[in-house]
Amino acid sequence: MSLTNALPADAAQAAKSASHILATLPTSARNDALTAIHKGLSGAKEEILAANARDLELARKAAENGELSLSIVSRLDLGKKGKWEDMLKGILDVRELEDPVGKVTLRTKLDDGLTLERVSCPIGVLLIIFEARPEVIASIASLAVKSGNAAILKGGKESTESFIAISKVISAALESTEVPNSAIQLVTTRDVIPQLLNQDKYIDLVIPRGSNELVRYIQSSTKIPVLGHADGLCSLYLEHTADLAMAIKVVVDSKTAYPAACNSAETLLVEEAALETLLPPIAQALLEKGVSLRCDAASKKALTSKLDSHSVTILQDAEDIDFDTEHLSLVLPIKTVKSVSEAIAHINFHGSHHTDVILTSSSGLAEQFMSSVDSAGVFWNTSTRMADGMRFGFGTEVGISTNKIHARGPVGLEGLMIYKYKLRGGGQVSAEYGEAEGQKRFKHEQLPF
Amino acid sequence: MSLTNALPADAAQAAKSASHILATLPTSARNDALTAIHKGLSGAKEEILAANARDLELARKAAENGELSLSIVSRLDLGKKGKWEDMLKGILDVRELEDPVGKVTLRTKLDDGLTLERVSCPIGVLLIIFEARPEVIASIASLAVKSGNAAILKGGKESTESFIAISKVISAALESTEVPNSAIQLVTTRDVIPQLLNQDKYIDLVIPRGSNELVRYIQSSTKIPVLGHADGLCSLYLEHTADLAMAIKVVVDSKTAYPAACNSAETLLVEEAALETLLPPIAQALLEKGVSLRCDAASKKALTSKLDSHSVTILQDAEDIDFDTEHLSLVLPIKTVKSVSEAIAHINFHGSHHTDVILTSSSGLAEQFMSSVDSAGVFWNTSTRMADGMRFGFGTEVGISTNKIHARGPVGLEGLMIYKYKLRGGGQVSAEYGEAEGQKRFKHEQLPF
Repeated sequence: MSLTNALPADAAQAAKSASHILATLPTSARNDALTAIHKGLSGAKEEILAANARDLELARKAAENGELSLSIVSRLDLGKKGKWEDMLKGILDVRELEDPVGKVTLRTKLDDGLTLERVSCPIGVLLIIFEARPEVIASIASLAVKSGNAAILKGGKESTESFIAISKVISAALESTEVPNSAIQLVTTRDVIPQLLNQDKYIDLVIPRGSNELVRYIQSSTKIPVLGHADGLCSLYLEHTADLAMAIKVVVDSKTAYPAACNSAETLLVEEAALETLLPPIAQALLEKGVSLRCDAASKKALTSKLDSHSVTILQDAEDIDFDTEHLSLVLPIKTVKSVSEAIAHINFHGSHHTDVILTSSSGLAEQFMSSVDSAGVFWNTSTRMADGMRFGFGTEVGISTNKIHARGPVGLEGLMIYKYKLRGGGQVSAEYGEAEGQKRFKHEQLPF
Repeated sequence: MSLTNALPADAAQAAKSASHILATLPTSARNDALTAIHKGLSGAKEEILAANARDLELARKAAENGELSLSIVSRLDLGKKGKWEDMLKGILDVRELEDPVGKVTLRTKLDDGLTLERVSCPIGVLLIIFEARPEVIASIASLAVKSGNAAILKGGKESTESFIAISKVISAALESTEVPNSAIQLVTTRDVIPQLLNQDKYIDLVIPRGSNELVRYIQSSTKIPVLGHADGLCSLYLEHTADLAMAIKVVVDSKTAYPAACNSAETLLVEEAALETLLPPIAQALLEKGVSLRCDAASKKALTSKLDSHSVTILQDAEDIDFDTEHLSLVLPIKTVKSVSEAIAHINFHGSHHTDVILTSSSGLAEQFMSSVDSAGVFWNTSTRMADGMRFGFGTEVGISTNKIHARGPVGLEGLMIYKYKLRGGGQVSAEYGEAEGQKRFKHEQLPF
């Protein structure tokens, strides 16, 4: 890794050249680099935490002056229980993942002695723009090396000292490996993002990790493809045959386990037939967890007749905008629908195509819902919060994508790969194949791989 | 199909709604729609060719006035030998392809009674912008219906009458099927492209089929992902161990079979050691085919000493710009390189990452070339012209992509698909899993699919 003050175009070009070397390194060379990074960071805990302490001090002052939120300060802290160990373990976890490079995904005999192969390969150069959390740099560097991609990293200014310290250690560690130093570059120059977003000749994919505002700004400022999600407006649909205990558990987890996460529920759709049976105890459980319920008229009426008078007084009225808002807090708008079709239509129109859940005992309705809802994740009787690369078993996660192409949902190493077609022949040319007399026909025989 | 004069936002929204229905139709319903389209067009040959004749008449007049090229006029002509029949056969060919919808590509048991599936599904709404050839409308409509995607089609103005005639027939044909009429919409309103490119809420992918200028304009004018290639700057690398007869055949085919195609060769890189042995007869064969050779100093010197005096007089000198130009004509710049590494570096820097070929008897060098060249197609001893969906056995082709994400190289039906994650559970929630005591662990057991 190099800590670069180079011009963005030069940094990007250097990354592209490095990517061409990195792409041809064997598994062992990429894994050895991860071992070296792990070893380097393990030995440099003291100096990195000291640098992190300087970042924290500045951040705390900024927070006292009201210039920074306390949650950002908290995310900065590498000394928090378990964080350092998790960061180090993450590097080894990535090392242990199956090599995603060089997998054959298609093999076709086009003709005798003319065999086509589709082989997975790295995308090339990734530009990763992220906000406060300094441990992300180690995890992103590991993912890039493992997947054979070069990466340019631009971190938030609040963690500059931590980034620089980590970067120096990784850079020194890579010196002893086959991974070129400029394969992983940390850019610390200010105001460099717009120039980097212009390097579509060298940068193949931008991955923003941060606020919705950051993602939207990037999407509208570059020709380079962007992998990310701007919103997580996830819905739960409660159908009247759902098991009550199960429904309470799933709704409460989806809303309250981590309200600020993109995979938390933001809307509860309730089938009319469930208003007086299932909804009241679920609402009660949510209220007990401190959730503000914003009800439409029908759900408010049902709850008013069933809940105790104190609970009734804290019910709120939903406005239209509530169903188009990612609240990211303990607020849950409730809307009544007549049927699964109305729920599906609502979700496809108002949702963000992230993750949506149906709660029902009917497998027929569940399958209809999962086929018809146009989202990355369509779940039956389980929490929206399951939408996560670790929980899906991908080992690690670059982010959760609401893109409709390339990679959708939780994105693991596979999302950092593309493929190339290798065609091995013996002098065959296009003009000798065709439908005319004397021309050859392609065989197009699928071979095992 | 509907012929729409609706506002672009309305057309796009209607397409999105239709896409949600189309995505859930069974294979048989989509295939039946293709049968109906085929039948409708078969029965309307006369009126469609009459409409096409009106387009042709206008185009011929425009050509006489120098406002239109004769090649565009020629591409317009649906009455040309075999074109009509090919168009109809194409629809049935697409119908016979394996259904790309609903394929399971991952199945993982996350825990007992909690199973994750990754299932292929349509992308949603495609915006396809194409130039003159009117038969494209039938092929694109077929691909969209087969893949379960809605499509908005915007054709070139020269073929308006043909498009409208075909569109009316397809629209009437779809009336009798389960495919919603607004799933395929033909937009004929002028100047509507910029407004359509703004509909990123409803349109998921833009596929431009036309000139480099069209593709570049679209790439820089929309937030919607664009699938396409702007350039095809393909190279051949001639290594000294290549078989001479094979090399002549491949070089001649790559350059001369269809010089205006994106998969034709635009640069010949010659290993120094092959300058006096292999290059002269290859150059002779190219000159006989009318190719203008633009030589660097070393290759010119070698050819001057080996070719007859007439041939020598017609050799040209290469300028730097020649190696960065997609000539699309019978021009071939020749550059001398010392080794395969120099060839790889040249291609990665000057090429367009489309298709590149090594000619050699050494499998070691061939594998090095194919691993290191960062292109969609990396071929050994076969023509660049093999880069084609039909030749690859994909049945049909949406285009050839030089994108680094989603789909690369010749794009068939698979390139019009994405996936969703279906997760079927029994009330499992995020909070019950973790490393703490009393928490459950995920099983992450891969299941067959």
